[in-house]
Amino acid sequence: MAPLPDGFSYAEWNATYNALSFGIAAMGSATIFFWLQLPNVTKNYRTALTITGIVTLIATYHYIRIFNSWSEAFTVASKDGGDYTVQLTGAPFNDGYRYVDWLLTVPLLLIELILVMKLPQAETVSLSWKLGLASALMVALGYPGEIQEDLSVRWFWWCLSMIPFCYVVFTLAVGLAEATSKQPSPAAASLASAARYLTVLSWCTYPFVYMVKSVGLAGPAATMYDQVGYSLADVLAKAVFGVLIWAIAAEKSAVEESGKVLPKAHPYV
Amino acid sequence: MAPLPDGFSYAEWNATYNALSFGIAAMGSATIFFWLQLPNVTKNYRTALTITGIVTLIATYHYIRIFNSWSEAFTVASKDGGDYTVQLTGAPFNDGYRYVDWLLTVPLLLIELILVMKLPQAETVSLSWKLGLASALMVALGYPGEIQEDLSVRWFWWCLSMIPFCYVVFTLAVGLAEATSKQPSPAAASLASAARYLTVLSWCTYPFVYMVKSVGLAGPAATMYDQVGYSLADVLAKAVFGVLIWAIAAEKSAVEESGKVLPKAHPYV
Repeated sequence: MAPLPDGFSYAEWNATYNALSFGIAAMGSATIFFWLQLPNVTKNYRTALTITGIVTLIATYHYIRIFNSWSEAFTVASKDGGDYTVQLTGAPFNDGYRYVDWLLTVPLLLIELILVMKLPQAETVSLSWKLGLASALMVALGYPGEIQEDLSVRWFWWCLSMIPFCYVVFTLAVGLAEATSKQPSPAAASLASAARYLTVLSWCTYPFVYMVKSVGLAGPAATMYDQVGYSLADVLAKAVFGVLIWAIAAEKSAVEESGKVLPKAHPYV
Repeated sequence: MAPLPDGFSYAEWNATYNALSFGIAAMGSATIFFWLQLPNVTKNYRTALTITGIVTLIATYHYIRIFNSWSEAFTVASKDGGDYTVQLTGAPFNDGYRYVDWLLTVPLLLIELILVMKLPQAETVSLSWKLGLASALMVALGYPGEIQEDLSVRWFWWCLSMIPFCYVVFTLAVGLAEATSKQPSPAAASLASAARYLTVLSWCTYPFVYMVKSVGLAGPAATMYDQVGYSLADVLAKAVFGVLIWAIAAEKSAVEESGKVLPKAHPYV
């Protein structure tokens, strides 16, 4: 992996720094919110909500690591009251954290979406395996390109990674449309549909952020766009998405408790 | 124990670093998941699920220690924007953490498997003692070889350690087959069988990772394979295995709650 480029302006350094800190605050607070809501949903949705919080917990951990790695890679100081200067310390900025994070969280957040849909058990198990494995493969194929400087090699891995990506996004957009129509109330159906589209939208930002460096942009600005872009996409795809999962769980719990629909509870779905 | 070899490339150093951080994230999040699921299983399976989380908690602690030990053993820096260089600081990298971890967690994870099977009480106690002691002996006999550079001495301890290893794996593969067939539902039986085979599979990776250095591989690459291999095996054997234990507990709780089978609860099983 190429070391960080030199020549960050204070504004570029600071924007990245603040975006990473925003990641910690958003993911950490989302985690606590999801878990505190556990007693407010019926048993049917507690596993989905638990996993929603696990996803943001893992992300919180990695944002703390990325933030510290970013801080340690720079010395920022003002000399004699002049403007801040940003210098590299030479310590590595570890991009690997993002990929380790995605390897764990992306399959889990697909599983949380499948669980909250409450499909028949066989379909739940088979979809979880298919989407979980495809999304892990997608992340694994992205990494070799991300640590490359050679633009054609970057594109090669980007293209490979897009194969499982398209499979997952297509399955979510089309396959789950049917499940959405079977939700027990109009409110639940519209929330489920929103969660489905938020997934597609937030997911589609990742290949574009990845392309920032692939189209030949380099230097501090490209690094800043990368880090700020991934941070915003992560908050959308994990914390905001999680809020929708919670809203679906809460709505369906209310429907079940009102006695309109009482699906047979399955222990871990 | 031999000091770390010199000459790590940044990629070798970084792969190990990321594998250890992955260990922290996977074990830590698994721990919280298991404990948040405690109210969702019946009292009969809460001890098994509590121990499942204890195992991953102990592993989280040790992965934090191993990660810090790894970080402190190296200085990684880029000079004048050049590639990262990896240098030894001379601080020791402590492999002992893994063995202390296994000494505690391996007997416990066998006990969690026995508890979730819900055998007659006398059999539970006798199996827990036999498998617990044999597995502790296995770990204890592996350690003197692990800290050796003399290949023949490494093999000597490897062979000794394989005696209790074979006993445990044989007992699990054959002895628990009978218990599996007695599970209260087909889903529980197939999950129990999966847990049994995952144990055998993940356990068998350890003697192979141990052999990396015994067959004469040395230097940075051997250390990397060692650390990455043990980390992946640990995540399989503790976190993924724990998810199966939870699924069994949840399935059997559902069966019990539906009134089909209502075994007499024992206070600590």
